Amino acid sequence: MKYKAPRGTNDHLPKDESIWNYIKGVATSTAKNFGYSQISTPIFEDTRLFKRAVGESTDVVQKEMYNFKDLGENELTLRPEGTASVCRSFIEHGMHNEPYPLRLFYLEPMFRHERPQSGRLRQHHQFGVEIFGAPGPETDIEVIALGLTYLSNLGITNLKLKVNSIGSIESRNKFKEAFTSHIKPYLMKLNEIDQKKFQLNPIRILDSKDKNVAELIKNGPKPIEYLDDDSKSHWNYFIDLLEPVVSSFKEIEYELDPNLVRGLDYYSKTVFEIEPMNSDLAQSRILSGGRYDSLIESIGGPKTPAAGFGSGIERVILNIKELSDFNNTGPKLMLIPLSKNGLKKSLEISIDTRNKNVPTIIGSLGKSIKAQLRYANHVSAENIIIIGDKEIQSNSGSIKNFTTSKEISIQITSENILKVLDINNG
Amino acid sequence: MKYKAPRGTNDHLPKDESIWNYIKGVATSTAKNFGYSQISTPIFEDTRLFKRAVGESTDVVQKEMYNFKDLGENELTLRPEGTASVCRSFIEHGMHNEPYPLRLFYLEPMFRHERPQSGRLRQHHQFGVEIFGAPGPETDIEVIALGLTYLSNLGITNLKLKVNSIGSIESRNKFKEAFTSHIKPYLMKLNEIDQKKFQLNPIRILDSKDKNVAELIKNGPKPIEYLDDDSKSHWNYFIDLLEPVVSSFKEIEYELDPNLVRGLDYYSKTVFEIEPMNSDLAQSRILSGGRYDSLIESIGGPKTPAAGFGSGIERVILNIKELSDFNNTGPKLMLIPLSKNGLKKSLEISIDTRNKNVPTIIGSLGKSIKAQLRYANHVSAENIIIIGDKEIQSNSGSIKNFTTSKEISIQITSENILKVLDINNG
Repeated sequence: MKYKAPRGTNDHLPKDESIWNYIKGVATSTAKNFGYSQISTPIFEDTRLFKRAVGESTDVVQKEMYNFKDLGENELTLRPEGTASVCRSFIEHGMHNEPYPLRLFYLEPMFRHERPQSGRLRQHHQFGVEIFGAPGPETDIEVIALGLTYLSNLGITNLKLKVNSIGSIESRNKFKEAFTSHIKPYLMKLNEIDQKKFQLNPIRILDSKDKNVAELIKNGPKPIEYLDDDSKSHWNYFIDLLEPVVSSFKEIEYELDPNLVRGLDYYSKTVFEIEPMNSDLAQSRILSGGRYDSLIESIGGPKTPAAGFGSGIERVILNIKELSDFNNTGPKLMLIPLSKNGLKKSLEISIDTRNKNVPTIIGSLGKSIKAQLRYANHVSAENIIIIGDKEIQSNSGSIKNFTTSKEISIQITSENILKVLDINNG
Repeated sequence: MKYKAPRGTNDHLPKDESIWNYIKGVATSTAKNFGYSQISTPIFEDTRLFKRAVGESTDVVQKEMYNFKDLGENELTLRPEGTASVCRSFIEHGMHNEPYPLRLFYLEPMFRHERPQSGRLRQHHQFGVEIFGAPGPETDIEVIALGLTYLSNLGITNLKLKVNSIGSIESRNKFKEAFTSHIKPYLMKLNEIDQKKFQLNPIRILDSKDKNVAELIKNGPKPIEYLDDDSKSHWNYFIDLLEPVVSSFKEIEYELDPNLVRGLDYYSKTVFEIEPMNSDLAQSRILSGGRYDSLIESIGGPKTPAAGFGSGIERVILNIKELSDFNNTGPKLMLIPLSKNGLKKSLEISIDTRNKNVPTIIGSLGKSIKAQLRYANHVSAENIIIIGDKEIQSNSGSIKNFTTSKEISIQITSENILKVLDINNG
């Protein structure tokens, strides 16, 4: 039979290597420039962690998680998002004992069992950041500035930043009441899924993809109308700080989206999403996050204010314009042996050149010179040296630069080769 | 409840960041110096791929795999090793149409449900390489040289390289016959697991951890005694080339281990393992691999000679001596705002400094100067600037270098700050 990568998953092939390294490099250097350190957590966690942190009534927990039992009958889940795992690690390793704020970032695969489409995979990859122990709106601004800097460093422009506040738990409970009363008269007209959500957590109806529900939501109460004093002053200060930061980035607009709540239960106060301007795609969101002041406590840690974002790398790649700029470079040197002694000589030289960080390959003994040159061309080898018995007996040969076609005659020693390569490459 | 990382899995915390980046960096540059390009495959694959490639009778498939069904009832397995996935990808993407040899490497998590102990985790990470389309023993040498260079670049010395040949399928069938006859008289004395292996594939008894069986194996026939002509000449040429390559590395010995067969079914001809010299640890092997000329064909591809190795990064870390050398550096600049205007000024400056790749953090408005300085010290900030209303009104302040305690007075502009940082860090 022919085996295939599981539906909704992709291989990253050598041709994809440079774009992935580029994005991971920009993510890492941007995070470092903001003082964030890297964390990496296991691929799977106790299923109960995600149920508790992400929320039983969310689409993620209801229908998108990869759950399984290990041989010890423990219920495990492939990580559907990054924040819950980082918070689990934060608590487990007693990071609340470190001076605040604590800044962390991750670059990790995530798993959601959704219907695959452009920009939506079952295994995708995220760059995310989390900051712990900082309650003020300037922290929300820092996280948003980090996100915008990351995208701007990648050359992605024309972005729309949507912001909203869903307030503290108390504010949200008041909104929930008003929203529930607003929805109730229409309950029987809702589809089955939204009716179930109404029972579990009516707020999750805001995630509905049903167009009639969208209309109903549009005319309903908004979380921002129910903010308590603390949430309101947090919001006002946030907007005050946001204006100059956003205007320092080119081609970025921001807007208040009063229906923005994010599809995960753990958020409080500020929430935000970044998407390309004028995008009609359903999967257009490329970076999103917010504050989550109650999450750590809800999963067994000390009360700890926190904020963060996650950004899908596959979606970011869809927004990078000049993908053709990302070509791999070939080996700097290809040694082409024509005999067993030539092979031994090549092995000997390759040890020295590789020690000097000169990427070196050795051609396949037994193939014709013509086939070897075709191969050198295919892998974009920069320089070639042919080493047969003649070259070994006369202790001489030549290095040919494949780009310039320039040939330089030398005594074949590692030292001479390294010298010429320095000349060839300035 | 308190959530914990699942048994046998680890978080990589910020303190571990530099050692992991160091090892991944050395792995990547070593692979590049040998002309290998990176590939990344999904975390899970069709379960049947591993059963077919790794072998139904192996310990891995029999008792160590994380198997689960997705919501579409597809049987999936978290990747227990890297080669099967890379070969699946090789076939799926038609890489046999590219000029040979094709060189690939990976850095990926692997999953085996074993009893956790030092150097053995349920989620561990591997650096691995594969080379396709090159049948000669010089390819086996290249792969071993790559492995030795990787370990030597990491400063790991005093290594023992064990080599053996298990021959072609035909050779191995002859050995299997002889070995089966040798074991048969003792069959009833074997433990249950080994009896089961005898039924499925007697060769897998060679993986037995039973001491009585070890004695039995010691006195039995060896694969190398049953090599056909092609396998024998491959082996002789391999040893001929191996000698000078191994001797070019310091403190590495090699030996023929006639009982070495590796615990996976797909190998043919050359197999090898590298372990620290004089190690008595059960989990001492840090790099292992071999040739697998029949694997691609057995999982539906065209007959393709291939070789490779895998190396567990956690085990490599156990062998790195000076772990204390790997400390993280702190942010270059910490801006300490004392007022709302100071915060706005700090945000403004941070955009400029980060754009110039100066890692910059902003202190928490509202905390005392004393607390801020303690924090600066804790995160190893290199330079600090205090920005209060006084500094903004007088448009002047000072940069203090935390290491030298030197203070320089400046007009507070991004330009001046960047100038001083250049001076401070020479």
